[in-house]
Amino acid sequence: MARNMSLICGRLTFFLCLIVVSTFSVRYEPNWDSLDSRPLPPWYDAAKVGIFIHWGVFSVPSFESEWFWWDWEGVKTNSAVEFMKANYPPDFTYADFAKDFRAEFFNASEWAEIFQASGAQYVVLTSKHHEGFTNWPSMFSFNWNSKDVGPARDLVGELATAIRNQTDLFFGLYHSLFEWFHPQYLQDKANKWQTQKFVESKTMPELYEIVNRYKPDVIWSDGDWEAPDTYLNSTNFIAWLYNDSPVRENVVTNDRWGQGVMCKHGGFLTCSDRYNPGKLQKRKWENAMTIDKQSWGYRRNTKLSEFLTTDELIGTLVETVSCGGNILVNVGPTSDGKIIPVFEERLREMGQWLKVNSEAIYGTYPWTYQNDTITPNVWYTAVKISMEQMLYAVFLDWPANKTIHLGVPKTAEWTTVYLVGHEDKPVNFTTLHPQGVLLEIPQIPTKELPCQWAWTFVFQGVLK
Amino acid sequence: MARNMSLICGRLTFFLCLIVVSTFSVRYEPNWDSLDSRPLPPWYDAAKVGIFIHWGVFSVPSFESEWFWWDWEGVKTNSAVEFMKANYPPDFTYADFAKDFRAEFFNASEWAEIFQASGAQYVVLTSKHHEGFTNWPSMFSFNWNSKDVGPARDLVGELATAIRNQTDLFFGLYHSLFEWFHPQYLQDKANKWQTQKFVESKTMPELYEIVNRYKPDVIWSDGDWEAPDTYLNSTNFIAWLYNDSPVRENVVTNDRWGQGVMCKHGGFLTCSDRYNPGKLQKRKWENAMTIDKQSWGYRRNTKLSEFLTTDELIGTLVETVSCGGNILVNVGPTSDGKIIPVFEERLREMGQWLKVNSEAIYGTYPWTYQNDTITPNVWYTAVKISMEQMLYAVFLDWPANKTIHLGVPKTAEWTTVYLVGHEDKPVNFTTLHPQGVLLEIPQIPTKELPCQWAWTFVFQGVLK
Amino acid sequence: MARNMSLICGRLTFFLCLIVVSTFSVRYEPNWDSLDSRPLPPWYDAAKVGIFIHWGVFSVPSFESEWFWWDWEGVKTNSAVEFMKANYPPDFTYADFAKDFRAEFFNASEWAEIFQASGAQYVVLTSKHHEGFTNWPSMFSFNWNSKDVGPARDLVGELATAIRNQTDLFFGLYHSLFEWFHPQYLQDKANKWQTQKFVESKTMPELYEIVNRYKPDVIWSDGDWEAPDTYLNSTNFIAWLYNDSPVRENVVTNDRWGQGVMCKHGGFLTCSDRYNPGKLQKRKWENAMTIDKQSWGYRRNTKLSEFLTTDELIGTLVETVSCGGNILVNVGPTSDGKIIPVFEERLREMGQWLKVNSEAIYGTYPWTYQNDTITPNVWYTAVKISMEQMLYAVFLDWPANKTIHLGVPKTAEWTTVYLVGHEDKPVNFTTLHPQGVLLEIPQIPTKELPCQWAWTFVFQGVLK
Amino acid sequence: MARNMSLICGRLTFFLCLIVVSTFSVRYEPNWDSLDSRPLPPWYDAAKVGIFIHWGVFSVPSFESEWFWWDWEGVKTNSAVEFMKANYPPDFTYADFAKDFRAEFFNASEWAEIFQASGAQYVVLTSKHHEGFTNWPSMFSFNWNSKDVGPARDLVGELATAIRNQTDLFFGLYHSLFEWFHPQYLQDKANKWQTQKFVESKTMPELYEIVNRYKPDVIWSDGDWEAPDTYLNSTNFIAWLYNDSPVRENVVTNDRWGQGVMCKHGGFLTCSDRYNPGKLQKRKWENAMTIDKQSWGYRRNTKLSEFLTTDELIGTLVETVSCGGNILVNVGPTSDGKIIPVFEERLREMGQWLKVNSEAIYGTYPWTYQNDTITPNVWYTAVKISMEQMLYAVFLDWPANKTIHLGVPKTAEWTTVYLVGHEDKPVNFTTLHPQGVLLEIPQIPTKELPCQWAWTFVFQGVLK
Repeated sequence: MARNMSLICGRLTFFLCLIVVSTFSVRYEPNWDSLDSRPLPPWYDAAKVGIFIHWGVFSVPSFESEWFWWDWEGVKTNSAVEFMKANYPPDFTYADFAKDFRAEFFNASEWAEIFQASGAQYVVLTSKHHEGFTNWPSMFSFNWNSKDVGPARDLVGELATAIRNQTDLFFGLYHSLFEWFHPQYLQDKANKWQTQKFVESKTMPELYEIVNRYKPDVIWSDGDWEAPDTYLNSTNFIAWLYNDSPVRENVVTNDRWGQGVMCKHGGFLTCSDRYNPGKLQKRKWENAMTIDKQSWGYRRNTKLSEFLTTDELIGTLVETVSCGGNILVNVGPTSDGKIIPVFEERLREMGQWLKVNSEAIYGTYPWTYQNDTITPNVWYTAVKISMEQMLYAVFLDWPANKTIHLGVPKTAEWTTVYLVGHEDKPVNFTTLHPQGVLLEIPQIPTKELPCQWAWTFVFQGVLK
Repeated sequence: MARNMSLICGRLTFFLCLIVVSTFSVRYEPNWDSLDSRPLPPWYDAAKVGIFIHWGVFSVPSFESEWFWWDWEGVKTNSAVEFMKANYPPDFTYADFAKDFRAEFFNASEWAEIFQASGAQYVVLTSKHHEGFTNWPSMFSFNWNSKDVGPARDLVGELATAIRNQTDLFFGLYHSLFEWFHPQYLQDKANKWQTQKFVESKTMPELYEIVNRYKPDVIWSDGDWEAPDTYLNSTNFIAWLYNDSPVRENVVTNDRWGQGVMCKHGGFLTCSDRYNPGKLQKRKWENAMTIDKQSWGYRRNTKLSEFLTTDELIGTLVETVSCGGNILVNVGPTSDGKIIPVFEERLREMGQWLKVNSEAIYGTYPWTYQNDTITPNVWYTAVKISMEQMLYAVFLDWPANKTIHLGVPKTAEWTTVYLVGHEDKPVNFTTLHPQGVLLEIPQIPTKELPCQWAWTFVFQGVLK
Repeated sequence: MARNMSLICGRLTFFLCLIVVSTFSVRYEPNWDSLDSRPLPPWYDAAKVGIFIHWGVFSVPSFESEWFWWDWEGVKTNSAVEFMKANYPPDFTYADFAKDFRAEFFNASEWAEIFQASGAQYVVLTSKHHEGFTNWPSMFSFNWNSKDVGPARDLVGELATAIRNQTDLFFGLYHSLFEWFHPQYLQDKANKWQTQKFVESKTMPELYEIVNRYKPDVIWSDGDWEAPDTYLNSTNFIAWLYNDSPVRENVVTNDRWGQGVMCKHGGFLTCSDRYNPGKLQKRKWENAMTIDKQSWGYRRNTKLSEFLTTDELIGTLVETVSCGGNILVNVGPTSDGKIIPVFEERLREMGQWLKVNSEAIYGTYPWTYQNDTITPNVWYTAVKISMEQMLYAVFLDWPANKTIHLGVPKTAEWTTVYLVGHEDKPVNFTTLHPQGVLLEIPQIPTKELPCQWAWTFVFQGVLK
Repeated sequence: MARNMSLICGRLTFFLCLIVVSTFSVRYEPNWDSLDSRPLPPWYDAAKVGIFIHWGVFSVPSFESEWFWWDWEGVKTNSAVEFMKANYPPDFTYADFAKDFRAEFFNASEWAEIFQASGAQYVVLTSKHHEGFTNWPSMFSFNWNSKDVGPARDLVGELATAIRNQTDLFFGLYHSLFEWFHPQYLQDKANKWQTQKFVESKTMPELYEIVNRYKPDVIWSDGDWEAPDTYLNSTNFIAWLYNDSPVRENVVTNDRWGQGVMCKHGGFLTCSDRYNPGKLQKRKWENAMTIDKQSWGYRRNTKLSEFLTTDELIGTLVETVSCGGNILVNVGPTSDGKIIPVFEERLREMGQWLKVNSEAIYGTYPWTYQNDTITPNVWYTAVKISMEQMLYAVFLDWPANKTIHLGVPKTAEWTTVYLVGHEDKPVNFTTLHPQGVLLEIPQIPTKELPCQWAWTFVFQGVLK
C-alpha cells in the first residue's frame, strides 16, 4: 500500500490559502500592548526557513566578523589591532575600506536562484549594519552608501527585484537602529537619551525610506540593546508599519526595538543570536544562526572546521521547527559579491533535504511533544488536515537498530507510518500502551535512502 | 634730510588700537536692514590682504578645478569625462577619491610660516566646499569628513591652532551653503525650497558647529546662488553670529547668503569671483582671486603660464586696495598637504614687497582719486595721522622717464616726497597749478631699488 | 573470523623499505634514450596521490583561469577584455596586479596540515607559471618575484619547510619552461629557436636555482609545446638532475620537456591535462587534474556546480590508480593565501576515504584487469605480499543488489573476502568457473559503512 | 655708433659648420689610451647647456631623493624608514610603488617646448637609474620597465621622438651601470668581480639596446664607483660606440665607467656631482647640477628655499662656461609626468637670459683668465672670429658704481665695448697700462636693462 498523497497540502496551495486570510483594518496604538496584539501574518510561521545575508563594508577587511570596526577601534582587540598594523598604513581608516567594496561579481539573479534552491521561503538582507553604511542610496547617508562609494549600485534594490521577479520568496531587510560610531548617536547617548538627533535625522528616516522604497516583508531590527525604545521612537514606527505602511498586511518584524524589549515585545521573538531554546515557546520565535559558526559577515581566513556541516545545519533546522521556531540561516557574501561554494553547498544540500521532507517542515506546527522521550535525536512536528492530524518524527540519525522505540506517539488501528520520500510501502510498527510505538526500521540500501542527513517518519491518523 | 619715520604708525601699534574699538552690545534682528547696519569690525578693513585656501577631496583628482565633480557628473564636460575614462575604472565614484586624500605632508606650522611671510593679515580655509566633505570631524557629515576618511585628521583644527599659536593673523573659514549632490538638498530644491531638510540637518548645524568649535574671525559663505535666503535661514544664523556667538565682536562675514543677496547685503561684498571693479565702491568689498588663473583647487597639470606673475599679483593687490577692497589671494594645496613652490614663491615675494611698502597698504583708506589722471598705472592710497594726511602713489612700473607728471596730488611748500624704502633723501618735485606735480625720479641703480615690482612715493603734507 | 591484518604492510613500513632501494651511481647521457632508461625512484609509484597547487599573480584578477594574461592580451578573449574594461583603468597592466598579491593569510603550516589530511603523499607547487612570476626570490627574475613585489615572502621556501618539518610528504615544484610575454623568449621564437637568450639567462638558470635551493623531489615541467627540447637544453638539465644534482636519488620528473617529447620521454608521462586513459599504460603516468573543473588557478566567481564532488574526485582517483597512474589533485589558493573551504572539504573527505582504503591505493600495482567485465564501476588494484597476492575491487557505487557478479576474480578455497574497514566478518561468495565470483553484499546500516563514497572488497589469496 | 652685428656668428650657422667637421674613420681600441684619444665631437663643447631629467619609480614615493630605495632598505636612514612606517603597510615593497608610476599627464611635446625655451642645447634623460627600472621596454628587464608596469608607455621613445621632431636639441640618455639590489650584481660583487653575470645579462645588453634603438647623442654613464671597468666591460662598449654604433660620429660620453676612471678617462669629465672647480680644466668637463639643491628626483615635500633662484642658476652657468665646462641642469618630473611650475619658471628664465646673452655662451671658449682679478663676480668667455677675438665679461651683479675697474682686458684704440642686448651706443672706457680697463657703466633705467640677472659686456678687438 503506497501512501495516499492527496492528503498532503502542497506548499504552494497552502500559501495561497494563507494569503487570503488578510488582516482587517484594525488600527494599532504606538504602545506594546497594542502592537503585541497584532496577529503575526500567517505566511511567516508557515515559511519556517529563511536566509540571512550579512554584507557591507566589513566584507572588505573580511576579518574576524562584521563587528571588525568595533573590535579594532571600539574595544581594540589585540587580533584586530594587529591585523591592521600588519596590513595597512597607520592612518588607514575604516571608511577607507569602502572604496574596495566593489561587488563586481554581484549578480542578484544568481543569488536568488541559490536561495530558492535552498528551500528557504524568505530572505533577509542587511540594509545597514552597525557601521552605518547603507546598501541602498539613502537620502540620509550621503557618501556612506553603496551607490556613492564602492559598488556604485543599489544592492538592496537589485536583490529585491531579483527575488520578486524570479522566485516566490518573501523579501526582508535587516536594519541596525544604532551605529557604533555615529557622532549624533554618541551625543544622544552622552545626553542619556534626552536628545534624539540621531533618531530624527538618521535611523528613523532610513527605516521609513526602506519600507516605502523596497516594501520589505520583514523588518529585522537590531542594534537595540543600549537605548530605550522611547528614545528610538520604535513604537511609533511599528504602529505606522502596521497601520499605514505599504506593507501593513504582510509585514512581520522582530523584537529588537529597544533596551529590555527583546524577547518580550514586537513580532516574532529572537531573544539572542543563535537562539535555540530546545523546547516549545509561547510565542513565535526565530533562530537566527550562521553557517560560519564564528561570524555573520564573510571572513577570508576561515577554515572548514568553522562551518556547520550540512548534518548539523539540518539538525538545527529540525530542532528549531519542532520547538515552534523559524530558522534564519546566515551566509556572508564576499566584497566582490559572491556566495562562496561552501555556503552554496550547505544551502543546496539543505534544499535537497527540504525538497524531500517539505511536508514535515513548511506549514507545520509544534506537536504536544517536541522530541521523543525514549529515543534521542528524534523531533516531532505536526499538521492538522481537516479532522486528521499528521505527525512527523524526524530522526537526525538513521536508526542503528532494526526496531526503534518511540515513547510518545499514540497509534491506532487506522494509523499508517511511512518513511517520507520512500513511500512505496508502509513501515511496520507495534502500538504500545498507554503510549509509544515500536517501529520496524526498513532496511534500505544506502543509495536508496530518500536523503542523506535526517529521515522523517510520518504517522497518519495518530491519536492526540 | 631723511624721512621722519616717527609719524608712521607701525602695523602692530595700529592693530592694537583697533582692537580696543570693540562694538557695544547692540542686538541685531534677523533681517537684512538690521544686519547690514552693523559696522564692520575695523580689523578687517585694516588688514587688506588675506590668503584663501581651497583644499578638499577635489585635491585628489586635482584636475580642471575644485568643481571637478560637477564637471564630471553634473554638466559632464568632455574633458572631465575623458579624464575619468582614461584613468579610472568605470565604476569609480567621486567618494572613492577620498581614501587618497592623505595629507601626509601637511604641517600646519609650515603653512602658518608661509602665510605670515606673505604679509597677509588673515587666512580663510575651505572648511567644506560644494562636494560636502568637511575638513573637520563634523557631527553632521559622518564618514564624509577628514577625520573619518582620508587624512584621518582635523585639518581645520590643526590650521586654526597653528595660525593662532604662531602668528597674529586672523583665521577664517569658507563654507558652502549648498552641496551639488546632497540628496536632501536636491529634494528641497525639487520641492521648490518649501522643505528645509538639508538646511536643518546639514548646512546650518555645520555652521554653528564650526563657529562654536573654531571661533573663526571670518565666515566666508558660498554656494548661495540657487536658493533664497529664507530657505537657507541665513539671517537667523547671521543674527546669532553677531549677537550671541563666541566671535560676535570680531567676526566678519561676506555677502553670499542666498539668491539675490550677493553684492547687496551681509558684511563685506564679494559680488563675484575675482571681483575687481577698478573704481571706488560704496561699501567694503573683497577681491577673492587666484594665483592659478584657472582654478581655486590645486591642479596637477598646470603650466607656468597659467599662474599670475608676482608683478601681476602685486598690481592687482595695489589696484584693489586703492579702490577700497581687500584682496584674498588663493592657493590650492596638494592632496598630500603641501603648498607647491610656485605658490610659495609668489606669496613670499608678495611678502617682501609688503614688508617694504606696508605703510601704503595696511590701515590705509582710499584717497579722493584711485589712480592718476595723467600717468597710467599709478594707484593712490592715503592715511590720516592726527591732522596730517599722507598720500601714497604706487607706481606699478618704474618710470621710464626722469620726470613724471602726476595729475592729481596738490603739493604745498611743506610737502615732502620720498621713495618708500629709500628714504635717505627726499624726491625733488615741482608743484603744478591748479593741481598736479612733476616728480624727478631718482636714478637709483637697479640693485638698490627698495623692491622689484612696484614702487611707492609717499607724499607727506599733501593738500586735500 | 576477523581479517588477519598482519599481512598488510603499513604505508610507513612500506616506504621505509623503498627508501633503502637507492639507485647506484649510473651516469646518464643528455639524450632521451639514456634518460628514459633511468628507473623511476620507487617512492613515486607507491605514493599514488599528490596535491597540485597553482598560485601566482593570476590569483589576483582570479578570473577565468591562470591563463588570464594570455586570454586578455594574447588571444584577447571577449570575456577577459570586457572584465578588464569593466573593472580597471585603460592603462592597467598585468604586472600592476602583482602589488595586490599579498598572501597575508598564507600559513604554510596550515596548508601542510590540510595536505597531509588529504592522504596525498606529495605536493607540487607552481614555482613559476607562464606569467614568469617566480614564487621564490630568484636571481633571474628581479622585481618579478614574490619577495620583491607583492607578498614580500619566499613562498616556495615557506611551503618546502613546512611540508618537510611537519609531514612525511614529498615536495615538488612545477616550473614553466616558457613565458607568454618574455621578450627574450619571443625573440628566440622569432629567430626560429636559433638563439637561446631566454634559455641561457632565464629558464635554465632558474631550474638549477630551484633544484639547488629547495631540493624538490618532483620537477613538474610545463610550457614545453612550442619549442624543441634542443632549444630548451632539456636533456642537459635532466642529465644533471639525475647525475649530479642534490636530489639525484629521489627526484622524479615528467614528460613536458619540448615539442614532441610529451607522452614519449622523460620520467612519468602526463600526456595532457586531466589525462585519464581508462586503461593500463605501458609507462608510469600521472593524471594531473583539478577540483575546479574549469581552472587550475583560483577563480573568485566560481559556482558550486563547477567543482568536482567528492564522489567524482574519488571515482577519478580509483580509476587512475587502477590503470597505473598517479593522481595529482589541483587546488588554487586565493591571493591572500587561503585554500577555500570547498577545496579543504574535498581534500579532507578524500583523506577520510584514503585513511580507510589506504591499502587499496598506496603501494599497489595495476592488476591483470583494470575494471570488472560484468559489473560496471568496479576497479581493481593489487598488492603482492611475499608469495601471496591481494586483490582489491573498489566499487564506486554501493551495490544495489544483495548479490553482485564480478566477472574476473578467480577465487580458491582458501580465498577470503572482506569489506575494507568493516573486517569483523568475511564476505560470503560463490566461486564461478572458469572465473568470476558472486559476492553476497553485506547489508550494513548506512551509518556503519566504513566510508561514504567508494567501497573496497579485498580478496586475499586470489588466483592469478 | 651701433654695434656691427655681422661679426657675430649666429648659433645656428655655427652649429652647421660644426656638423661638417665629422670624424674620419679612425678605429679605437678598447683601452683608455686609445679611447681617450678620440676628439670630442664639437657640437658638445659648443652646446654649453643641457637639461638633465631624473624620472623613475622613485618619483612615486617622491621623498628624500631618487636614492630613496637605498635610504630605506640599504643604509636604512631614520627618515626613510619612518616615512615608510607612517605611510605604508609593513609588507610594502619598493617594487609595489611601480604601479603608481602612471605618467598620466606626460606629454613629451610639452617637455620639448619647455626645454627648447630654456636655451639648452641637449637633453639627458635617465633611461634607468640605480633602481634598475627601465624607462623603455627593455628586453632585459621584464616587468620592471615602463611599458610592462606603471605608465604602460615607452617614456624614452616618446621623449626622443618629440625632441627630434620639434627641436634641434641633441638627445642623450643617462644609464646606471649598477643596480643597488639586483641579485646578479650583488653576487658578482660577492665574487669580487670575478663573475660577470650581471654585466653580461643586464647592464651591457641594455646599453647596446638603447644605443641601437634610440640613437642617443650622449651616453651619460653612472653607477660606476664600486666595480672595476674590466668587470663592467666598459672599454669594449665604448670602443663599439665610437667605431661601429649608429651614433659613432656625434656621440659623446662621460667618465663614469668604472672604479677609478671618473675624472681621468672617457669623453667629457664629470668628476663629481655638481662639479664646479672654479678654474680652467685641461679637459672638457661638465657640471651636472640640480635646481632642487637636495635631490635629482622630484620630491613632493620641497620648500622654496631648497630651490636655486634664477640668479644662482645663471651665476653657476656663467662660472661653469667660463671655466670650460658645460652645465647640465637637472629637473625631476612628477610621477604623473609634469615638470612643476617652479622648475618651468627657472628654465624659462634661464632661456630668457640665454636668448639675450647667447653669444657669450654658445660656441665660446675659455679665455686666458676665467674671472676678473680686481672686480669680483665677473666671468670671461671668448670667441675668435677669423683674426679677431671677441671677449665677453659677464657681470653677475649689476655694478653699483659708475666706473668699474677690470683687471685683465687689454684694450686698444680700435676696441669697442658694448652691453649685450643694449647695443645702440658703445660703452666708454679708459685703457689702463699694462693691462686693465676702467669701464663707464651706462646708467640704464631698470626696466631697460636687457635682462634681469647677469649682464654681458662684449669687448670687440681686444688684445691678447
